[in-house]
Amino acid sequence: MAEFSIIDTYFNRQKLSDDDLGVGDDSALVTPPPGHQLVICADTLVAGRHFPYDTSPHAIGWKSVAVNLSDIAAMGAKPHSILLALSLPQIDHAWLKGFSQGLYDCCDQFGVRLIGGDTTQSPHLTLSVTAMGWIEAGQAVTRSGAQVDDLVVVSGTIGDAAFGLQHLGHPLQQRLDYPTPRCELGHLLRGLAHSMIDISDGLAQDLGHILKASQVGAVLNLNQLPISPALKSLPESQQLQYALAGGDDYELCFTISRQNYEKLLQLQPNVKTTIIGTVKQQYGLTFEKDGLDHSLQFNGYQHFA
Amino acid sequence: MAEFSIIDTYFNRQKLSDDDLGVGDDSALVTPPPGHQLVICADTLVAGRHFPYDTSPHAIGWKSVAVNLSDIAAMGAKPHSILLALSLPQIDHAWLKGFSQGLYDCCDQFGVRLIGGDTTQSPHLTLSVTAMGWIEAGQAVTRSGAQVDDLVVVSGTIGDAAFGLQHLGHPLQQRLDYPTPRCELGHLLRGLAHSMIDISDGLAQDLGHILKASQVGAVLNLNQLPISPALKSLPESQQLQYALAGGDDYELCFTISRQNYEKLLQLQPNVKTTIIGTVKQQYGLTFEKDGLDHSLQFNGYQHFA
Repeated sequence: MAEFSIIDTYFNRQKLSDDDLGVGDDSALVTPPPGHQLVICADTLVAGRHFPYDTSPHAIGWKSVAVNLSDIAAMGAKPHSILLALSLPQIDHAWLKGFSQGLYDCCDQFGVRLIGGDTTQSPHLTLSVTAMGWIEAGQAVTRSGAQVDDLVVVSGTIGDAAFGLQHLGHPLQQRLDYPTPRCELGHLLRGLAHSMIDISDGLAQDLGHILKASQVGAVLNLNQLPISPALKSLPESQQLQYALAGGDDYELCFTISRQNYEKLLQLQPNVKTTIIGTVKQQYGLTFEKDGLDHSLQFNGYQHFA
Repeated sequence: MAEFSIIDTYFNRQKLSDDDLGVGDDSALVTPPPGHQLVICADTLVAGRHFPYDTSPHAIGWKSVAVNLSDIAAMGAKPHSILLALSLPQIDHAWLKGFSQGLYDCCDQFGVRLIGGDTTQSPHLTLSVTAMGWIEAGQAVTRSGAQVDDLVVVSGTIGDAAFGLQHLGHPLQQRLDYPTPRCELGHLLRGLAHSMIDISDGLAQDLGHILKASQVGAVLNLNQLPISPALKSLPESQQLQYALAGGDDYELCFTISRQNYEKLLQLQPNVKTTIIGTVKQQYGLTFEKDGLDHSLQFNGYQHFA
């Protein structure tokens, strides 16, 4: 079966509007909404590294889209479309059917269309998705805007996916396999948050990127971390390891003034958010617990072992 | 070495303008020029499949950009920027240095910037590049616009890269390793060509995509195919095999009215173009030689063997 047949069979479902052009030409063609900037990112998933080998093809399809929409959400943008670069060892129709269904399920849930890409044969299963979104010009939320006295806030609960990876078969594996990109929350935060990132490598490491880019520090209150009931039954040191250094959460971490945080809550985002700390002038990440300074050392996910 | 260090060391050279944002945030941010449409594509190169294992890292870097700019050119668009998704087995600094230099050399030659992407560890070297370009709204040249009586035209010479692949060490290996995307020609052809494609899988197969999308046929004059002197010394059947079914040329094939072709020549594109046939009403690709019908069967590159 040639590449063209794979695309026609599995990846040619969605049609664009008359002015635009999707799967099936040299490139896709997209008309920008007036007054908007393009937000674009690409993330790769490698079998055995970014997901266990026995992950269901449906989950792989979902996750390959979700992790990229999470990067779009972290800029405050509204996701628009994706390209898929799929490298796979052989043509396995059951796999392709499940994978494409998972991919489209995630696209459908977040109003995103697959508009192009490439299918190639490779000894090792590798998926690169490029995601695009649009944001009103000048409204993008970057990593570099954190301000002293901002609140540090995270969405959802953290550490679940890392726990799921260590406990395959546990219900929290769902959080590893089917991350939920916080698209609505991210888009609501444009014009409100001062800085934002999505948590892919662990809260401490990812918040560290905000602090470095913004040249500020932060103190986190360990009593406030939003931790799932399943993790709450673990010894505290393990809870903190998962919550601070566990990757693959795809929750949003942002800094925001208290006034703007009140505005956000009035907009009633569809996911819980939790204040976990405060931005400080002095560079670096510190912790406090029960009102006292607390010393901790954590490392996040390393892409090369 | 973490992903961040690789990016900082090898892929953080180019800065964007003040309004835009490149490598180092969750996503890149690009301001569309007013009245333009976004043209976007993604192509993957897999070691051992899209280039021989012993290809120089510099050539791999060049080619990974060039094949994508070729897709942008084939729409008539002007290339703007790329994202790189690089999956590699280990950190080899000599390799990364050569690769990034080749990538930037191609970017520089065509006025393109690397604005984002992802570096991951994988057992097998795989590169996916996403390329973006802009085109005046409504001016994109697709595969579906071929009109009866159009001329069929190709740029440069065809079959060289396939010959180079079969004769590694021959000077024509340069055409395999360092393809030249026809960016200037493609952009000149917006508003002039009726249909266009870049030749990646062989002329016969790629022209076939135009014919299918446009629901027309074409007759090619085999005497007119632009073939390099090195290939001219081969038996004719081999010449035709390379020229019609050899992949990796990254020349442009387009259909155009005679009047518009005259206009193109007055613009003096920086690459030779050759009329090789005519678009016909009856669907399918046929050949003539020395004024007579000529029967040929060819297959182009198959992405899955």
